[in-house]
Order: sequence, then C-alpha cells, then structure tokens
Amino acid sequence: MRVSRRSSVDPFIVMDVMEAARRAEAAGRHIIHMEVGQPGTGAPRAATDALTRAMTDGPLGYTVALGLPALRARIAQLYGEWYNVDLSPDRVVITPGSSGGFLLAFTALFDTGDRVGIGAPGYPSYRQILSALDLTPVDLQTAPENRLQPVAADIAGLDLAGLMVASPANPTGTMLDRTAMQALTGATAEQNAAFISDEIYHGIEYEAKAVSVLEITDEAYVINSFSKYFSMTGWRIGWMVVPEDHVRVIERIAQNMFICAPHASQIAALAAMDETAELDENLRVYRENRALMLAGLPAAGFTRIAPPDGAFYVYADVTDLTDDSRTFAAEILEKAGVAVTPGLDFDPVRGHGTLRFSYARSASDIAEGLERLKAFMQNR
Amino acid sequence: MRVSRRSSVDPFIVMDVMEAARRAEAAGRHIIHMEVGQPGTGAPRAATDALTRAMTDGPLGYTVALGLPALRARIAQLYGEWYNVDLSPDRVVITPGSSGGFLLAFTALFDTGDRVGIGAPGYPSYRQILSALDLTPVDLQTAPENRLQPVAADIAGLDLAGLMVASPANPTGTMLDRTAMQALTGATAEQNAAFISDEIYHGIEYEAKAVSVLEITDEAYVINSFSKYFSMTGWRIGWMVVPEDHVRVIERIAQNMFICAPHASQIAALAAMDETAELDENLRVYRENRALMLAGLPAAGFTRIAPPDGAFYVYADVTDLTDDSRTFAAEILEKAGVAVTPGLDFDPVRGHGTLRFSYARSASDIAEGLERLKAFMQNR
Repeated sequence: MRVSRRSSVDPFIVMDVMEAARRAEAAGRHIIHMEVGQPGTGAPRAATDALTRAMTDGPLGYTVALGLPALRARIAQLYGEWYNVDLSPDRVVITPGSSGGFLLAFTALFDTGDRVGIGAPGYPSYRQILSALDLTPVDLQTAPENRLQPVAADIAGLDLAGLMVASPANPTGTMLDRTAMQALTGATAEQNAAFISDEIYHGIEYEAKAVSVLEITDEAYVINSFSKYFSMTGWRIGWMVVPEDHVRVIERIAQNMFICAPHASQIAALAAMDETAELDENLRVYRENRALMLAGLPAAGFTRIAPPDGAFYVYADVTDLTDDSRTFAAEILEKAGVAVTPGLDFDPVRGHGTLRFSYARSASDIAEGLERLKAFMQNR
Repeated sequence: MRVSRRSSVDPFIVMDVMEAARRAEAAGRHIIHMEVGQPGTGAPRAATDALTRAMTDGPLGYTVALGLPALRARIAQLYGEWYNVDLSPDRVVITPGSSGGFLLAFTALFDTGDRVGIGAPGYPSYRQILSALDLTPVDLQTAPENRLQPVAADIAGLDLAGLMVASPANPTGTMLDRTAMQALTGATAEQNAAFISDEIYHGIEYEAKAVSVLEITDEAYVINSFSKYFSMTGWRIGWMVVPEDHVRVIERIAQNMFICAPHASQIAALAAMDETAELDENLRVYRENRALMLAGLPAAGFTRIAPPDGAFYVYADVTDLTDDSRTFAAEILEKAGVAVTPGLDFDPVRGHGTLRFSYARSASDIAEGLERLKAFMQNR
C-alpha cells in the first residue's frame, strides 16, 4: 500500500536508547534514566482529586474547541502573576499538549513549502512536524557564544515565513533575555515572518524568570503546556496564546483536527494551577539535581558544559571524548547503566559531538547516576 | 500577522446552532438537543473507577507512541469477538480520538495535492482536515438509490490517491454491506489508491452487524474510536488498524505529532471494553429512540427519511418543506425549541435541502422533541 513522501520523518534516536534501557531492565539490570525529558513526579494531588470528583458528577463530553472557559481564564490570570501581562482569556486556546499547539500554529500560519527557522540544537519534533505538513524547516546553526540560541543575524536574508524559538530551550536549558527576544521579534517582523515562542519550560528557572514574548509584543504565538512545570506529561494538555485576530482561525482548525482537548485533562489542569506548594517542591528537587550535575559531570570528565538557566537538561560538548555520540551513549548505557541521549536528535549536523543529560528524576537517582558516570569514565 | 491559505477551513454550521441553543438556554428557554452527535451517557462506571485507582497508584507519564500494550491487545481481541477476524495487536495503533487517526492516516498516505474521495453527505472534518494538510478532497455525490453511500462507479476515472468511506455513516446511518464494501475496495485497489474505512459507529447497529473492511482485506486503514459505542467522547481516545508494513511509519508520525494518546483515557478505555451490560443498556435506549424517530418524524411531517442501519442519526430530505435548511433549522430552534443540524455541514451542494436529527440523548428527550416538532409543523 502507498506511503507518502511527507511521512518519511526521522525516528527519534532517544527511542532506541529507551528500548535498549528497557531490554537491559528486562534482563535484570538497574538503569538510571537520564535520557527521558519528563518529570519523575505525577500531576499534583489536587488535580487528580478534582478529576475523581468530576467523574462522579456527570459525563465528560466534548468541551468547546477552544477549551473550558474557566481554564482559559485561569491561564490568562497566570500571565498577570508571572509576567505582569494583562491578557484577555479570549486569546487563550487550550490544546492537546504542546504537540497540538505546534500542529495548530503551523497550519494556521504556513503554506506548503514555506520556510520556517528553527534553532539547532532544538526539539526534534519541530522539524518533523513541519516536514509532515510539507513545510520547510530551516536549521539555524546557533553559536556557542550565543549559548546555542538563535540571534537576529542568524536569520538575515533567509526569506523565512516564520521563526520558532524556545526559552528555556531543550536540549540546552539556555534562555533568551528580554534584549535578545526583542531583537529576534524585530528581525522576524522585518521579514514579515511569524514569531512562535515555545515557552513549555517556563516556571522551571534557576537564576532569573524567563521572559515571555507577550511582554514584548502581542503579534506572536505562544505555545505552552502542563507537561513540565505542572508535571502532567501523559495528560496531553497545553495551551497557546495567539493574536486576537487569529482566534477564529485557530478555533476552526481545532474543531476539525481535535474537536477539543481531553476534557478530563482540562479539569485536572485547572486544579493543578493553584498547587504552588507541591510544584515548588518539584522545583526544589530540580534545583538540587542541577547543583549535583554542575558538580558531578565535570568531576566525571564531562567538562564542556554550561549552567542551564531553566528546564532540566545539561547539554554537553563531548568532542574531546568521541566523534560518535550514538556509539558513546550506547557504551555509557552498557557499561555504566546510565541512559543518556545522543545529540543527533537535536542537531543532525553537530550532534555527533554532544550528549543531553536529563535531571528530571529524583535527587538520589541523579546522585547515583553521577557516581556511575564517574566510575565509567575512570575505567575508560 | 500572516495567515496561511490552508487554514481557511469552513466553520461548522452546527456550531452556530449550538451557540444559538446556548443563548436560548441562557435566556431561560428549555431546548431539546437533536443537533449534537454525542451520547447523553458518560463513560462506563468501570472506566472511571479504573482511572480513579490508577491515579492513586502512580504518575501517568507518557505512554509509548503506539499506546498501552494491554489496550492494543484488548482491541485486537475485539476483532475476534465482533468480526471473527484474527488480528495482531502489533497492527493496532492507539490515537487521540478518531480525529488523531485522520491526521495520522492522511499524513502517512498522501502528499500535497493528492486527491482523496469522500462521500457527500459525509462527516465535514474529512474535507477540512484534508484541506488543512493541502490535500484535495473530492466530493462524491452519492445517490439516494445507493442509500447515499459511494459505489464503485462513483470513483471511476477520478484519479484518486485514496478513498474514505464510513459505515454506518454520519449523517445518514446507512451501511455498506459486504458486497458493496468488496466492490469499493476492489475499485480502489485498481486505481492504486488507499482505502480508509471509518468504523467509528460500529457497535451501534440495529438490523445487522456492520462489516469491517478487515473482513475483506488487510490492505486498508481502519479508523475507530471510543466516543460512540463506548460513550467516551470527551476522552479523545480512539484507534487505527493499519497494514503491518505501515506500523513503523505511523509510529514515527505519532511520536512527533502527539507523543502519545492521553494516558488517563487509555486506562479508562481499557476498562470500558468489558462493560457489555452497561453499553448494551445505552444501545437499548438508541434502539427505543430510533423507533420513536421513525414513527414521530413522519407524523410530524418529515416524511422523506430512511431507517438508519446504525449510528444515532436520521437524515431527512426536506426539499418539500424548504430550500434553505439553515434558515429552517433556525426557525425550528426559535419556534419549537428543538436544535437540529442543517445538512450543509455534510453536503455543501445538496445540504440546503436536508436536516440531520440526532437521537443520542435520553428517550424522554426524544419523545418531547418529537412532540414539539409535530406542534411546530402543524402551526407552520
């Protein structure tokens, strides 16, 4: 049976790592997971409690396509609390995870063949979803001196229809400060290109609060999610903020593509938003893990790292250790029992010389993983 | 800010009806809902109980992209129970609703500009999702003598890359029997086109069991969902069955587009599958409602209807009553307090002369709605 050209997206290499880790565990080995980008914690207790109550109250039918009005209002309120931005709930769109946000944003903004700039290294699904929609991802090879974030000069003359940025970024954890974000929105507007800001790691910051593009302009798409700070990965629930005159466009696409985001997840998400104490405790663990990583990785021999501003990743330059990150990751899994992600998922060009270490799990796991890495490197 | 051409999808007219109904209710009126295509019942009790337990057991993180193995296995088992088809769980893909299935199928099978045949009347999102992906929907104007289902002759010479059928169909409730399905799969294969069978209303049948395309060939995509027979609309959970050699293609697209279907919904869906007694009770109500409709609609003056084989809709030819179904539906809502859907959502060409009546709610609602329709028509 026929298969389309647009469907030939690359596999995630991290999936091979996860499968190898699973096989090792099935064979009785104990593996420390530094490959997976999801919290070890679950949804806040109040979130699951709210859903348990709602399920006894009545059927969870379709919601309207833009999402439960109470959830949209509560998210608008968050923009006041976090950024001092006055945001109308009308501009908030509930999505099935940030994944759903990408599909909606790319469909609303771009036509076949349009060129969309994405930073390399970056989240691999940007590239793959763009390709699946027959759009053209344009990798921006970001510079170490810019902390692997794109700058205005990187997009000059590229004839882009859009630019996608992430701050804090996956896999680096680096952020765009207000000046950097402002320069990028300005340069993008000059090309008449759309600006999309992936803010999925907002709330997980260590030195300074992340800047939302909405502090700078209303002429941008924001994509966010309950998966990271709110610790609700498997719930597939997120949101977008779009310009006022794009709400109807997005609504129509969402009605057709999704009907609505999962109703149960919308209820849980709304209850999660007030659980500051529990979420702060998750943050405390990330902060502790980050300190462990920033001490332990260099001690183990991974010296070419930068302190992440946010998220829960350290992206290491390992060109002094290997020119084949995939084989190196397999060796680390095999000999150290630690699963890590080769950089090729994030940067097809330079990723052979990088590894991503995730520190989203418990502090004891992280400490044990670092011990194993150190022992492995000493015997290498 | 820029907007793409592909995003200019038509609005659902039924949404305007729903909004008008909501306003009427907000103004204190009592409205009978015959416009909405969702059960009045919720998920089976065992489904919500299973989720309540799972939420206390641990975090609901990402599942693998193809879905929980136990759910895939249970769905494969269903094909033995319902159709006597021996199906490998490896071919079952869990999706975020049938909506997610359409996105995956269309992306896996078709490239920009490819022509995909869809029956008119038919589910409007087929057309809209195809357009949003820059594919070309080709409306097949089905014939009343074929009970508004496409036949092989309808696709001759159309140079299709694919054909999408639905049996039982929305909005007509008519089915393709084995001979009709066989003729269509044969004609489609001759054009080297892909065959996609939307089987979302399977399980809701009145005279005979619906035929799955898998009883005829493995070279087809099946799209199904927990929304209708299993009464789980808002949970956004469904499945596909694809040919063996398409599983990896679908897996890679799903990893990027969705990461996974909602974990909570997967748990609830698995538990729902054994709740035959509760689901049969829902069916009993649909059957009672159908009998009420088949007596009450002609008595009210809607005489040009055909008994539906399945689903919970009656599609009425109202060309003897109006040439403007949209205005007629508005009048029925205004004067009778009954919300119905104008046919234009399902058939842009002939839908000005048709209405869809849904009978998915309680029998008392249906009886009351029919009384109101009768009184309205008598005074018209």
